[in-house]
Amino acid sequence: MRSVLRAERGDEIVVVDGQGGWYRVRIDHLGAEQVVGGILETRQEVGEPDVEVTVGLGILKKRSRFETFVEKAVELGVRRIVPLRTRRTERESIRRDRLRKVMIAALKQCRRSRLPELDEPQTPKMLLEDRRTGGRLLCHGGGDGTPLLSALGDAPERVLALVGPEGGFAPEEVNTAVGAGCTHVTLGRRRLRAETAGVVALNAVMLQVQTC
Amino acid sequence: MRSVLRAERGDEIVVVDGQGGWYRVRIDHLGAEQVVGGILETRQEVGEPDVEVTVGLGILKKRSRFETFVEKAVELGVRRIVPLRTRRTERESIRRDRLRKVMIAALKQCRRSRLPELDEPQTPKMLLEDRRTGGRLLCHGGGDGTPLLSALGDAPERVLALVGPEGGFAPEEVNTAVGAGCTHVTLGRRRLRAETAGVVALNAVMLQVQTC
Repeated sequence: MRSVLRAERGDEIVVVDGQGGWYRVRIDHLGAEQVVGGILETRQEVGEPDVEVTVGLGILKKRSRFETFVEKAVELGVRRIVPLRTRRTERESIRRDRLRKVMIAALKQCRRSRLPELDEPQTPKMLLEDRRTGGRLLCHGGGDGTPLLSALGDAPERVLALVGPEGGFAPEEVNTAVGAGCTHVTLGRRRLRAETAGVVALNAVMLQVQTC
Repeated sequence: MRSVLRAERGDEIVVVDGQGGWYRVRIDHLGAEQVVGGILETRQEVGEPDVEVTVGLGILKKRSRFETFVEKAVELGVRRIVPLRTRRTERESIRRDRLRKVMIAALKQCRRSRLPELDEPQTPKMLLEDRRTGGRLLCHGGGDGTPLLSALGDAPERVLALVGPEGGFAPEEVNTAVGAGCTHVTLGRRRLRAETAGVVALNAVMLQVQTC
């Protein structure tokens, strides 16, 4: 507070609780280990979009690429990130603590009030058993899917987008996902890297609901 | 050819010239320094979008972030990248050779046939004097601009999008750009990092013209 923000007693700062709470606070006391202040104004869901988007992305071989995705996804308003273990993932685990740090830094940077959820790694099948996830998109290479914007309803409240790892989803995973209600969508004529596909799908949903 | 692609005489491969030319080639001879083949099929502009988008992005303090932008921009179909020197850029130069390598790797990855142009660093004013750039967007923080999708015509042939460095454009730069025909657009309610803003603006244009 003192060294980075150069805050002083009497200053007003903004505090968020990561659960949608936003507080304008006046600092009354600045101690070495503790800061005490009074709440001047409370707001809810500041910086949050009107659509809840969950993105399931295959765990990537290069950790830095998964981190890039996580950072951009927080900036773009994702609600929940699910690292996927798929037939073609070459890595089983994520560095949870490190990803949480990236997410908190991105939350502050972009001035959101809600920290997105970061699930434990799971299979697409497990994620698809979760009935709360809303409109379902399977982003899968090539030109034979529906264009992304056409696949979205006018203003969905919840969207789930699944994106494979480097090698994409295996054919049986595509079938399972379509059987579980996913629309197979294409992200265009160029072959996007997995983390780019995740960012593009999320951004398209946000643009569609005009709340990005 | 031999060690990475494991190509053999008689194999068919795809070759691009970086200027929109795409060739299906049969390998006739594989030497240590030279490969000779016959062209079986020629196509033009494979993987290229129908809109020519130029993105001018402020040179960023962290080189890795500018590189991330360049890689994603190539994947998303950018035609020309212009590193901008602005009032708030803290760095004057780019590493041209390194960025070119990133661009060529991304071109191969995403299967484009045209290598985007990478300009020398210049000021927004210099770029705006170039009359070939088409519809002009100035992406600048806060909520007081036009939403991006509304600012674009139905199917523009050429678009220029300007994005500032970490601290954004200075007020006089915004005025100059608007005076030169730019529409001031907003990218939404969250404060995006500069490289994220560049990717988002480019992706929105591509989605809009349905050719991404």
